[in-house]
Amino acid sequence: MRRSITGLSNPTVKYLRSLRDKKHRRREGRFLAEGLRLLTDARESGKLPETLVMAASRDPHPLLSALEEQVEAAGGEILEVTEEVLSKITGKDNPQAVAGVFAEFDSSLASLDRNAAPIWLVAQALRDPGNLGTMLRTGDAVGAGGLILLDNCADPFSVEAVRASMGAIFTQRVAQAEWEEFVPWLRDGAGQLVAASLRDAQPYREASYQAPCFILVGNESRGLPEDYEAECDLRVTMPMRGRADSLNAAVAGAVLAYEVLAQLAP
Amino acid sequence: MRRSITGLSNPTVKYLRSLRDKKHRRREGRFLAEGLRLLTDARESGKLPETLVMAASRDPHPLLSALEEQVEAAGGEILEVTEEVLSKITGKDNPQAVAGVFAEFDSSLASLDRNAAPIWLVAQALRDPGNLGTMLRTGDAVGAGGLILLDNCADPFSVEAVRASMGAIFTQRVAQAEWEEFVPWLRDGAGQLVAASLRDAQPYREASYQAPCFILVGNESRGLPEDYEAECDLRVTMPMRGRADSLNAAVAGAVLAYEVLAQLAP
Repeated sequence: MRRSITGLSNPTVKYLRSLRDKKHRRREGRFLAEGLRLLTDARESGKLPETLVMAASRDPHPLLSALEEQVEAAGGEILEVTEEVLSKITGKDNPQAVAGVFAEFDSSLASLDRNAAPIWLVAQALRDPGNLGTMLRTGDAVGAGGLILLDNCADPFSVEAVRASMGAIFTQRVAQAEWEEFVPWLRDGAGQLVAASLRDAQPYREASYQAPCFILVGNESRGLPEDYEAECDLRVTMPMRGRADSLNAAVAGAVLAYEVLAQLAP
Repeated sequence: MRRSITGLSNPTVKYLRSLRDKKHRRREGRFLAEGLRLLTDARESGKLPETLVMAASRDPHPLLSALEEQVEAAGGEILEVTEEVLSKITGKDNPQAVAGVFAEFDSSLASLDRNAAPIWLVAQALRDPGNLGTMLRTGDAVGAGGLILLDNCADPFSVEAVRASMGAIFTQRVAQAEWEEFVPWLRDGAGQLVAASLRDAQPYREASYQAPCFILVGNESRGLPEDYEAECDLRVTMPMRGRADSLNAAVAGAVLAYEVLAQLAP
């Protein structure tokens, strides 16, 4: 189905705009991804938007035409809008020429197959959507299975997290759970839980990792609670040669993930 | 000197507020750092603010008293302001109770002693202040000498970069230069220039690094220009097991820096 919308007060515009807000995303089970590159990543990962929103003034592009065709063939909706409407939806002065509405993915722990990959990233109370998206991107790069979000993390389906993931939101599995659900799930199968830590830890390059390896990073300012660290099978530490005693959470996860990758899947 | 300011239209308030803007920072040669933690990091690194701005309603804190004393002893200015004024200065609804105005540091290449550290981070046209601050933080952790910013990078003295550096803006050297100045400077002494690259590159864990090692990362969306890569002594590649062909710039720099650290200063 194809429609044109020019009015800013159109209910569809209001609906699309509301998806920038977490509460509305949750209620609708839908999220927004912006830009041709991201939508092409999604398509190549087998994920098509239910609704494709395009600026009427867009320049032609073969990747955009391919996307349009597939969305129509799959019974999706194509909306042509003015640049003003697109600005309103995306909240940007110079919006990308295209955006898509996707159904949120199943993010239950039960839906994960832990043996599908040697590495899984796990974040606890990670608050920054940029860090979250960056962890997804790193997970894609190291061939991780996905990102498990514990406790009160930022929303992986926010525009900022989706953007920072550089398409990895469509290739990595995402699960959301409380710590109290995660531990029994983890212990119900194979899995080594590893934390970057300052307490009772061994050098990260001398530790021995086992697949499936779950790399746990904590909140940006508080780090991991002590009892979470105590539950870990392995606590490792990275050199800290300066004044600070910690790395950015996404950086710590990445340095550790690349070490695990070198050991488990060189 | 100690003063109280309550009026939002006070010229000093306008001046302080203007330091959130790059143009004014450049003209004044001054920048803002917010929060007791950051200011304490600065003090412990031997850097005192010229002006200390405190909420009159602040809670007493021994670290704050220590800071206050030292700033006064050094002839600095103490401003007591209302919370409303502090909000205006910092642009935040719930500002930290304290902020400081610092003189910008000398950021000329000529001021760097390349032999002071085995590792230097170099960023080209890095646009995101969060990535820039994160690179400073990583530099501190790996014992790098500092961060060299090439071409049109984000401002290292912006509030966002200073915040993301978690105090490393006060411990790491920062230099700013154009590529055309950097290459002759680099070649005028010892130094291995290393880039993360996809072209003609060897695996990053099999490469041989030499101090002082300059780790070069490129712009977030375009990466490094081809001729910049060609100038490098070593091009290394990290495993990319997923769909994407690159990592977040700050992450790539960190993974590489930790490998170099393991080789050069284990």
